[in-house]
Amino acid sequence: MLAQAVGYSQTAFGRAEEDGFADLATRASRGALDAAGVEPEAVQALFLGTYAGLALGGQGFPAAVVAARLGLGRVPATTLEGACASGSLAFHQAVAAVEAGVHDVVLVVGAEKMTSASTAEVTKMLASASDIASDSYRAGLTFPGFFALLARRYLYDYGVDAELLADVSVKNRDHGSRNPYAHFQTPVTRDEALGARPIAEPLRLFDCSPISDGAAAIVVASKEWASAHGTERPVDVLAAAQASGPVSAEELESFVSLPAVVVAAEKAFTTARLTPNEIDVAEVHDCFTIAEWIATEDLGFFKRGEAAAATADGATRVEGGLRPINPSGGLLAKGHPVGATGVAQLIEIIRQIRGESYNQVAGAELGLAHNVGGTGGLAAITVLGRG
Amino acid sequence: MLAQAVGYSQTAFGRAEEDGFADLATRASRGALDAAGVEPEAVQALFLGTYAGLALGGQGFPAAVVAARLGLGRVPATTLEGACASGSLAFHQAVAAVEAGVHDVVLVVGAEKMTSASTAEVTKMLASASDIASDSYRAGLTFPGFFALLARRYLYDYGVDAELLADVSVKNRDHGSRNPYAHFQTPVTRDEALGARPIAEPLRLFDCSPISDGAAAIVVASKEWASAHGTERPVDVLAAAQASGPVSAEELESFVSLPAVVVAAEKAFTTARLTPNEIDVAEVHDCFTIAEWIATEDLGFFKRGEAAAATADGATRVEGGLRPINPSGGLLAKGHPVGATGVAQLIEIIRQIRGESYNQVAGAELGLAHNVGGTGGLAAITVLGRG
Repeated sequence: MLAQAVGYSQTAFGRAEEDGFADLATRASRGALDAAGVEPEAVQALFLGTYAGLALGGQGFPAAVVAARLGLGRVPATTLEGACASGSLAFHQAVAAVEAGVHDVVLVVGAEKMTSASTAEVTKMLASASDIASDSYRAGLTFPGFFALLARRYLYDYGVDAELLADVSVKNRDHGSRNPYAHFQTPVTRDEALGARPIAEPLRLFDCSPISDGAAAIVVASKEWASAHGTERPVDVLAAAQASGPVSAEELESFVSLPAVVVAAEKAFTTARLTPNEIDVAEVHDCFTIAEWIATEDLGFFKRGEAAAATADGATRVEGGLRPINPSGGLLAKGHPVGATGVAQLIEIIRQIRGESYNQVAGAELGLAHNVGGTGGLAAITVLGRG
Repeated sequence: MLAQAVGYSQTAFGRAEEDGFADLATRASRGALDAAGVEPEAVQALFLGTYAGLALGGQGFPAAVVAARLGLGRVPATTLEGACASGSLAFHQAVAAVEAGVHDVVLVVGAEKMTSASTAEVTKMLASASDIASDSYRAGLTFPGFFALLARRYLYDYGVDAELLADVSVKNRDHGSRNPYAHFQTPVTRDEALGARPIAEPLRLFDCSPISDGAAAIVVASKEWASAHGTERPVDVLAAAQASGPVSAEELESFVSLPAVVVAAEKAFTTARLTPNEIDVAEVHDCFTIAEWIATEDLGFFKRGEAAAATADGATRVEGGLRPINPSGGLLAKGHPVGATGVAQLIEIIRQIRGESYNQVAGAELGLAHNVGGTGGLAAITVLGRG
């Protein structure tokens, strides 16, 4: 049974002063149900993605809590965790349930509440998405440090000037400046990016995604259900592939490629019967600027070592770029409420395919979302197409 | 495609001084693979259940970490959370993947590391498996308090003497005294139970399950795979049903029944085409003594208000009982490492159906596991049968 996305909604990403974890998740969920024209009682299952709903948001058991708040009835409510790819896991489980014919219409929501904890606490929780018995974790390697190592290696291997990293943040902040849901809606200049304070060199402030609160939800239905309900502009799920990979820095064989992404991408393209060149638009997991270069190379959008120059040349811009990447502004501008990120990426691809984005890629029919957990311990790749 | 359990293993439950979360989960997983005769490279997906792997165990992203430690290759590794029913959710997702034909052989593991946190911290984390914006949570209602309310209501509604609660703990501690993996392997007398210090009256110390560390793992395969690999004594998964329910005390319409259990049980019996009377043996979620009475009534094993007398009469004992409940000793004796609990319940049912339990119910062919999360916010019911 073909699964389709038939409605979506998200909260504004950023600092949610008033709202708790379940408030955010419930609001996005209600919005998605309204958009899809689905009554809560009609939903047959809920899949919720979060990394630290309990550890940072204080809310355990969130799928059951959100199901109760929405009045879904006594349906199965399942919480999925896959670090920064938690939202995509929830979407993939929903798709699998619809494809298997177990359910006809299900709700997916991803959420995170992070800003009420201290930056040190958040940094430690995120670093715990690696093997905490590993030498690198015990030595204190956090994610900014890890991605700084990848950046140094990339610059060294390919002889790239460190200043080119700024082109990623400048591009994504520009895209994000037109995204009304983005955490940062102001552009940054190249000089601002290069002059910002170092976080873990060569990464500076604007090379890093922020700590955000937010939620995003999608209603997934079978094509049969969507047709029977007259859904307008449904979006087909052409592939939903997941793979695991190294869970500590010292396990990586290369610092310029994440094997889980390579494997998941291969599965996704095979399932969708597509090649990277046929993808019109992609949202990739730019938790740090360097991650966007490596992602676009692992996905086969650019040859090894060429993403940096392609970015500098404007190839990844929505305006005038042949290979538009992160029209939403990516994690760098949109924000990174961890559990919501994967779902928000998919929402942007749905917008693009429906032709309703604030940063529309003209004629986009095929889109891809690339969501990564930890040090590449998990990759979830989803390919969507016009229904 | 019929799903079968083809191998299992668990760690001893209790206080694991040396082992971290991932150590426990990895050990149980290796044991299950060995028991099933499955090489790590042959596993096609991993499903891991935990409630507080990050919040209490300090290990985020555990499915990916365990997959890497086991050397599973680049397979999907998914973490499921459903409070105290997390382990069953992992098992149910694995069964769904096999039934849908997505995978042929998958690994399920449930784990929790709780004893390195303080009792106050654990109690708060467990209480967070309810809506933390609810009045009852904000007023400080923890799980011992919640189940004490249920106990008071049960005793009042049915005119039952509070001393009868002791029969549940005496029976389960007796069963547990023969379980080499149990947290408590010593029996308690009725006088000891009744003389123990109050925790939340009428519940006393032995009415409450302990805080434990532990892990349990099962290999699930398609019947086709199991036949082709000559698996001995495979156990059929006849039903795996899940439902959601109230997530705070004030949402419950009755304090002597959990609606999620009633709904999930109805679904499970319908799917398995069985009635409660046909079940030979059951593991039920006795986080507190009162919970066993309510569970056995919600499941239809006893009429409303009759579980107390039935327990007093010995009906739920393995020796001489017509309706043996918790041959493992239940959570009260076996311990309750939250994420592992559901998987350990299923392991006991598999042992029973294979005829290899330390507390064998003669001729057991059909068994049921009943696993509950939070204040009944989630129920997962699994029915297994001889393959």
